[in-house]
Amino acid sequence: MLLTVPSPTICRELPSASTVGIGVIGYGYWGPNLLRNFMKTAGAEVVGVSDLDPARLLNAKKLAPGIRETTDFKDLLSDLRVDAVAIATPVHTHFDIAMAALRSGKHVLVEKPLAQTSAQARQLVDEAARRGRVLMVDHTFIYTPAVQKIRDLIRERVVGDVYYYNSTRASLGLFQPDVNVIWDLAVHDMSIIQHILTNGPIAVSATGVSHVAGSPENMAHVALFFSDSCIAHISVNWLSPIKIRQILIGGSSKMIMYDDLEATEKIKVYDKGVVTLSGSEKDVHQLKVGYRAGDMWAPHLPAKEALESEAEHFVDCIRRGDAPMSNGTTGLQVVQILEAASKSIAAQGAPISLHRS
Amino acid sequence: MLLTVPSPTICRELPSASTVGIGVIGYGYWGPNLLRNFMKTAGAEVVGVSDLDPARLLNAKKLAPGIRETTDFKDLLSDLRVDAVAIATPVHTHFDIAMAALRSGKHVLVEKPLAQTSAQARQLVDEAARRGRVLMVDHTFIYTPAVQKIRDLIRERVVGDVYYYNSTRASLGLFQPDVNVIWDLAVHDMSIIQHILTNGPIAVSATGVSHVAGSPENMAHVALFFSDSCIAHISVNWLSPIKIRQILIGGSSKMIMYDDLEATEKIKVYDKGVVTLSGSEKDVHQLKVGYRAGDMWAPHLPAKEALESEAEHFVDCIRRGDAPMSNGTTGLQVVQILEAASKSIAAQGAPISLHRS
Amino acid sequence: MLLTVPSPTICRELPSASTVGIGVIGYGYWGPNLLRNFMKTAGAEVVGVSDLDPARLLNAKKLAPGIRETTDFKDLLSDLRVDAVAIATPVHTHFDIAMAALRSGKHVLVEKPLAQTSAQARQLVDEAARRGRVLMVDHTFIYTPAVQKIRDLIRERVVGDVYYYNSTRASLGLFQPDVNVIWDLAVHDMSIIQHILTNGPIAVSATGVSHVAGSPENMAHVALFFSDSCIAHISVNWLSPIKIRQILIGGSSKMIMYDDLEATEKIKVYDKGVVTLSGSEKDVHQLKVGYRAGDMWAPHLPAKEALESEAEHFVDCIRRGDAPMSNGTTGLQVVQILEAASKSIAAQGAPISLHRS
Amino acid sequence: MLLTVPSPTICRELPSASTVGIGVIGYGYWGPNLLRNFMKTAGAEVVGVSDLDPARLLNAKKLAPGIRETTDFKDLLSDLRVDAVAIATPVHTHFDIAMAALRSGKHVLVEKPLAQTSAQARQLVDEAARRGRVLMVDHTFIYTPAVQKIRDLIRERVVGDVYYYNSTRASLGLFQPDVNVIWDLAVHDMSIIQHILTNGPIAVSATGVSHVAGSPENMAHVALFFSDSCIAHISVNWLSPIKIRQILIGGSSKMIMYDDLEATEKIKVYDKGVVTLSGSEKDVHQLKVGYRAGDMWAPHLPAKEALESEAEHFVDCIRRGDAPMSNGTTGLQVVQILEAASKSIAAQGAPISLHRS
Repeated sequence: MLLTVPSPTICRELPSASTVGIGVIGYGYWGPNLLRNFMKTAGAEVVGVSDLDPARLLNAKKLAPGIRETTDFKDLLSDLRVDAVAIATPVHTHFDIAMAALRSGKHVLVEKPLAQTSAQARQLVDEAARRGRVLMVDHTFIYTPAVQKIRDLIRERVVGDVYYYNSTRASLGLFQPDVNVIWDLAVHDMSIIQHILTNGPIAVSATGVSHVAGSPENMAHVALFFSDSCIAHISVNWLSPIKIRQILIGGSSKMIMYDDLEATEKIKVYDKGVVTLSGSEKDVHQLKVGYRAGDMWAPHLPAKEALESEAEHFVDCIRRGDAPMSNGTTGLQVVQILEAASKSIAAQGAPISLHRS
Repeated sequence: MLLTVPSPTICRELPSASTVGIGVIGYGYWGPNLLRNFMKTAGAEVVGVSDLDPARLLNAKKLAPGIRETTDFKDLLSDLRVDAVAIATPVHTHFDIAMAALRSGKHVLVEKPLAQTSAQARQLVDEAARRGRVLMVDHTFIYTPAVQKIRDLIRERVVGDVYYYNSTRASLGLFQPDVNVIWDLAVHDMSIIQHILTNGPIAVSATGVSHVAGSPENMAHVALFFSDSCIAHISVNWLSPIKIRQILIGGSSKMIMYDDLEATEKIKVYDKGVVTLSGSEKDVHQLKVGYRAGDMWAPHLPAKEALESEAEHFVDCIRRGDAPMSNGTTGLQVVQILEAASKSIAAQGAPISLHRS
Repeated sequence: MLLTVPSPTICRELPSASTVGIGVIGYGYWGPNLLRNFMKTAGAEVVGVSDLDPARLLNAKKLAPGIRETTDFKDLLSDLRVDAVAIATPVHTHFDIAMAALRSGKHVLVEKPLAQTSAQARQLVDEAARRGRVLMVDHTFIYTPAVQKIRDLIRERVVGDVYYYNSTRASLGLFQPDVNVIWDLAVHDMSIIQHILTNGPIAVSATGVSHVAGSPENMAHVALFFSDSCIAHISVNWLSPIKIRQILIGGSSKMIMYDDLEATEKIKVYDKGVVTLSGSEKDVHQLKVGYRAGDMWAPHLPAKEALESEAEHFVDCIRRGDAPMSNGTTGLQVVQILEAASKSIAAQGAPISLHRS
Repeated sequence: MLLTVPSPTICRELPSASTVGIGVIGYGYWGPNLLRNFMKTAGAEVVGVSDLDPARLLNAKKLAPGIRETTDFKDLLSDLRVDAVAIATPVHTHFDIAMAALRSGKHVLVEKPLAQTSAQARQLVDEAARRGRVLMVDHTFIYTPAVQKIRDLIRERVVGDVYYYNSTRASLGLFQPDVNVIWDLAVHDMSIIQHILTNGPIAVSATGVSHVAGSPENMAHVALFFSDSCIAHISVNWLSPIKIRQILIGGSSKMIMYDDLEATEKIKVYDKGVVTLSGSEKDVHQLKVGYRAGDMWAPHLPAKEALESEAEHFVDCIRRGDAPMSNGTTGLQVVQILEAASKSIAAQGAPISLHRS
């Protein structure tokens, strides 16, 4: 996978002992989480917060009395104490704000998805590379202990060949006005798949529908095809009476159930599977499949909040000149898949090929 | 919906007081359930059982000592005491056996799916109509108290407009050698959808994959499109470490969760939904959706076994000359959808139109 | 039930328009919750916080930058801006601190249990009455929407005669050094029972054991007897691998399951029960009992945090001169039951009578 | 533990190759299970069934057409083909029927509890020993794969010191007319405790109540004390809207949750516990307890039905002259505990000492 590795000599402007000044842009649903976590990140200091709504800034002030507040994010970009910005604004504003920040010489962390189009995402990647700045996307799930554990179990071949990845994300809301449900929820799965599997998808088929007039699709199903028999399927729904956050991963040796709503035992590893009993694969009416059922095991996971790890990782990457795990390129690839899925939805599931550059 | 209503004068050969003689063909996984239920059906008498395997016939003999056993189903077709047969053999044999039975003048109940192709299914429908015989498909789920209740809630407008039907059927096995997982599991949902909704689907998009060399698809996802914004999605999986049998139905007024694995409270009715807050649907970035959360209610359901109701219904239809709820035509329509879904799987999700005759 | 109704003329020192100044004493596990909720209570203003540990005071300062901090709670008692204190210190210190506060003329909210002995609790009740001050105990659960709903269902006779109250509270920790598990966990149930039932218990039988040398009992079971056939049973456990917070209430007309760990549907009301079929109660071998099974219903509950309601109630009672729902007398009664239960534990379950004064 | 080891020379009347003839006495709720399992037990042959109700005998005839039926159990006792009887009649008839069977020289399997009083149970033990006959009690749970696994985990010191055994058995019914709920449900736990722990209880405290006039206690709680800090608690309830069958076992090294209603993963083993952090046990206000949280593990269990194993074990013991795992003496000890618990219920929880003979 191609990473936006910036030239270290360009990026190393900060002596490693200095503190990274952070500006938080957007203080709606996610901004307070960014503020809270950067406030406790060693090596970082939150300089200011911007939001169009003064009432929200009052709330930020309660949490962090000493910081600068402004209704204009450009004030943060021109603030010399700000080395990096964390952007948590509506999706359709990501490109303009992130581009302005990069052009001001700031390192940038953008809420997922990176941008509304792959063309925009590519421009951001290029701009960050040109200026030697860290561009990171807030693909939160890959920083969770659960996904880290799953990645380890796959990479260490405990799972065996990965047969499928099957995810369901359902709840009542939150309807987004400017993106459909796959850009809001399926984006999590695309970043997880990218992180735990070694190959990327080669085509996508998706269906979806809007049940609220004038609103983007609130329910969708996405299938991702790979070059082998592995398949991923993602079911997302803003209009469900119950909340579901479940990922089932099937492998030739083990199967994993990851239920993010479980307080403990989020991951269960099942020693279950099938074995082919009949050698003769030609007699279609006689093929026999046997079943293997063994123990189940729920590994203990550390309790660390994902966003805390992520904030630390962002600061580390800035100080070391490293590319983050969720960098501009991975963010771009996710946007490419989202774009292809949206095209397939418009074509009632017709498959869209994913040409990788 | 067009039903195979046979001409009553032709069918009324049996005086309503006489007993309907039943022959059970196939005594593998499902046959014992048919035998057990027809043995307790008032107005019916099991005359004999056939199976290719003598060991299975021994088991049948234990359950019903007085009946005729044979390894050749034709013995039952030529038995004058047999008025009707119940066929529970592998899918690829359904057509030949059902056709032979109809030609012998027997009424026929066939295990789902009705046949392996819609052409075969259509021939069976025609043959039954020509001979004035009852042709019924064993779409078991529509005879469950749960599905009956859901149908009532929809027909009585409690649910409001149906937005979606979302089903998941997963477990470890049972792999079928001659049909893929949608012909084995999704067929249940297609018959349920047919039973509870007033309109049928107009197109289908499906994806699926086989993880066992030489075996049909063991995992698939099917989307059914309707003429309005209603959408159905069915996820089926023979290779899951955990068993799931869940259907979520979203409506404008209520939402229903039907979990068939719950011992009690199989159906939960949620008074939840969304309301559009903004009148201006043009400003895509400002659309606001509000959420409504009310009580949940789990109606008490009678405990009657579906197959018991179904056996009684089959016998009633024979005696009254009525078309069953799950008749040849509904069975044909389900096979048409299954065929279209298989075509879509081969085309990686490309939509297949459903031309209704 | 006798309430500590203070003489209104004495208590009405505060014109209803003035603001109630609050001091928070103890900033360990529960103190931050008190601070956070009093900060948003209309009509209240947090003046200061005390704790023996300066590090904790730093945390308080972050949350409420403008308030006074001190390691000596007496500073708050002598602060004229403080009208009332909220005490969240270890149980063995409740009496001394609350008594000192009352003697300084402050209104007092004490963390449960009110005191370590009923003699101490009685002195606090008397002191508050003598000085016309509000004495309130933090029996949090009676302020939850769930318990309010259960109380309504019982008071409105929906439940019918209450047959039993059966509670289980289990988790891994938090071991308390100065009180055993019933003073920490069963105290919740005793206050709930007091709130929802019209009669109090007349005797108690309890068993318990300590599995950690030198530590108070970490596991206990308490039965409360009433004058009729109603019985309450409380199972509490600090040494459980899984967390459980479940209360089952059986009535002649309805039964209620209250699972506090459910995110939604915390309360389920079952229309289930038994009916006696045989009139002859003398033939012990023939008595027949029939079963009634109807719908289940989960009423929607408002999402308001209990402690928020509680803080508002405390301030209201101070301004109006009212006795709180959880006042000194109810707190005393709970301590009496806890004392009796501890006596019964020492006597391996021998019943202890509860003489009400 | 003292077992009723009969003198092998007396018992060995049956050459090991011969078939054990079985008579089933009582064909109500449990009898059909006994019949079905003994029919498939190698080395056994069911000779006849008796029940007072001819309608039930008709049902038995359907399942086993060739066997003898009678409304008088004495017919089976005088039948020379009957070597052993399995008694599944109401509890108050156990003693008379079992005693008559032993006196007729039959081996005896009795439904739990062995008898209504310990005096009766002791007479049965003595009679069986005198006549060299196998006396077995149907303590079904100790023959389940789940309890066998728990026993192994305890005996192999995986669990460490057993701190507690905490069981809940609740459902709506089945009310018994001649015994209270502890004789019906808690009896299971007493036999499990006897089987998995090496020491027996030394005292019991129990509370209980009847909510149906003229009926025995339908809800009870039983605490069993041991000579060390281990404690067992059993909660049983015939009047619960939901069914619960859960046993929690806490140990110094591991904790076990056994949920018998789970289709799979009936047993979960948690690597959780506490560690004492403070050496000074004298300062009661400073004792610190630390928590240990590790993996969870659900061992795969074989699917064999307990009653099948039990029927085989009964036949084996008859043929080998061995004492069964659940023999007369273990049955007597369980009845002694039940008697003591009933006494304690009458005394509102006052502890009753268990003097072992």
